[in-house]
Amino acid sequence: MKYYMPTRVFSEKNCIEKHSAELAALGSHALIITGKSSSKLNSSLDDVISALKKHSVKYTVFDSVEENPSVETVMDARSTGLECGADFVIGIGGGSPLDAAKAAALMIKNREKPWDFLYTTIPAEALPLAAVPTTCGTGSEVTGVAVLTRHDMKTKVSAKHKIFPDIALIDGKYLLNAPRKIIVNTAIDALAHLVESAINTTADIYSDMSVFSGLSCWKKCRPYIDGTEVLTVGGAQLLMDTAALAGISIAQTGTTIPHSLSYMLTYSAGIPHGAAVGAFQGKYLKYAEKERRNAVLSAAGFTDTDEMGEFIAALAPVSCDRELLEHSAESVLKNKAKLALCPYEVTPAVMADLISD
Amino acid sequence: MKYYMPTRVFSEKNCIEKHSAELAALGSHALIITGKSSSKLNSSLDDVISALKKHSVKYTVFDSVEENPSVETVMDARSTGLECGADFVIGIGGGSPLDAAKAAALMIKNREKPWDFLYTTIPAEALPLAAVPTTCGTGSEVTGVAVLTRHDMKTKVSAKHKIFPDIALIDGKYLLNAPRKIIVNTAIDALAHLVESAINTTADIYSDMSVFSGLSCWKKCRPYIDGTEVLTVGGAQLLMDTAALAGISIAQTGTTIPHSLSYMLTYSAGIPHGAAVGAFQGKYLKYAEKERRNAVLSAAGFTDTDEMGEFIAALAPVSCDRELLEHSAESVLKNKAKLALCPYEVTPAVMADLISD
Repeated sequence: MKYYMPTRVFSEKNCIEKHSAELAALGSHALIITGKSSSKLNSSLDDVISALKKHSVKYTVFDSVEENPSVETVMDARSTGLECGADFVIGIGGGSPLDAAKAAALMIKNREKPWDFLYTTIPAEALPLAAVPTTCGTGSEVTGVAVLTRHDMKTKVSAKHKIFPDIALIDGKYLLNAPRKIIVNTAIDALAHLVESAINTTADIYSDMSVFSGLSCWKKCRPYIDGTEVLTVGGAQLLMDTAALAGISIAQTGTTIPHSLSYMLTYSAGIPHGAAVGAFQGKYLKYAEKERRNAVLSAAGFTDTDEMGEFIAALAPVSCDRELLEHSAESVLKNKAKLALCPYEVTPAVMADLISD
Repeated sequence: MKYYMPTRVFSEKNCIEKHSAELAALGSHALIITGKSSSKLNSSLDDVISALKKHSVKYTVFDSVEENPSVETVMDARSTGLECGADFVIGIGGGSPLDAAKAAALMIKNREKPWDFLYTTIPAEALPLAAVPTTCGTGSEVTGVAVLTRHDMKTKVSAKHKIFPDIALIDGKYLLNAPRKIIVNTAIDALAHLVESAINTTADIYSDMSVFSGLSCWKKCRPYIDGTEVLTVGGAQLLMDTAALAGISIAQTGTTIPHSLSYMLTYSAGIPHGAAVGAFQGKYLKYAEKERRNAVLSAAGFTDTDEMGEFIAALAPVSCDRELLEHSAESVLKNKAKLALCPYEVTPAVMADLISD
């Protein structure tokens, strides 16, 4: 058994303003890494800039992170960081900018290394890093994981380095005006993290603490996810904290079969990450050992795995080419490291069921 | 809300042997800080030495830590560390050696500072530190807290610095042959950490994850604590993991009234720490808000606070001078920072009940 999650987490209303000193203490020139628009619309970028200005910390904004960021984008961000002399990095946004920020923090610190240094296991430090999530799924703010698009491989692949943010600043207000689709898709991603961490050969007492707290929070969030209740300030904070608990969980166990199956679907068919991982959750849980399966279902507030699968499918339907699904399944069946994380044997028959409608 | 617990935790059978590389990576000369005998009897000291030898890491043993170690002992350990040129510290034992090891790691790194540097808030680093617990209560292996005896104040006082171990190596086997009194007293201390973290103004979603996982593990350990079942290897590991979960909890919230009340009892009447904190748990929980109180009782497996109080009193009875209790209560009633952690008002009448039989 093991436990490691070194990020200092702050979660509250006006979090960036309240913890501007902790943010500013990370360095003297920040490279802010974010996407094209959402961090401008939800005011998170403004809040970060105000916090830095308050402490006379310089900053440069790199706002060209696309959804499912590529290694090329990370290398562009590094160039910007090196040009401006950044000595720390702030990622703002969903999983895409946060993962890009982690990879950039590593590559700026290791300025002489080529892009594929990301995929080596050579021990290396990254620049100090802060993460400001604005969606409720990734959990990237509390994990060491950076998933990047590899155009050379036509899929997404995690960097080999574990790059935990030094601080995570979580404020539900950035979620309040997010499109419903984003809230739904990312909340399903959080559920996927909790389920895949629960049904995992490396699950233990330490990972279970965040898994079951996370599932119980997710259950409380359900009315905001299925839209039966209007999202409140408190609800938004709870959705974000749920995502963080789910992130703490996968930081311990890693994700397993559904996440692996999803990457090609996202790369080749443009299916949003949350929907792509959500599509396999009901079936993935169905094969788990009964007592464990029931504990997960009960904590999340579902009667059975069919109900869970249908709940997800209704909110985030996925339609995708049969051939692509089979190609992805074939590739996962060859990934021994990933299969080893699944507590039951994923035979070709089981896999066929996992990817069936 | 906030969360911070940066220690890398490993918990398994033959943990030190399996993670000797991680231990050896902390430096080139270890100062091993431990008590007079238990780490020799339970083989934890031998295991640490074997691990260091395997990686050709030098070591010096300082084995003069008394129960409830004094600042003077910490300064003696520093002298030993400076003489031998130690560049990291390993604490082995119960809370006493672990807390002393933390304080020594700070003071060796800050070699010019006088003893009262421990009680300043000046930011400072400590030497790299590993913690090997051999009891099941302190949780010191996963907290930044070092409680030391202050003979000048005739009580115990926590150092102001937060000194988290870099790694914690948890192996239940060191508990298997411990005296029952040690197991009982330290398991009650773990319960106290869980209760005081639950009934705490700073409790939140993040502290609750370890609190409720910890309480549910504690419930499973109960037959080993009350002696109705013989301690097994698995039971010993669970007792130690429960203590770690309880430690992760107080690392977030701090302890509150019962711990504060206990320190003078331990100092002046020699009452073991677990018994001294245990004496106030039932009453402390009794005044908590109903829903919260019931959640704690149910998770720990008690019907009501009387049953919990009686369970503790039967296993770890405390008899102590009325005057001493009143003196301690008087001092706690003046400690505004501690009172602020209690979710209900501790009036003189409430305090009188807390310290009543």
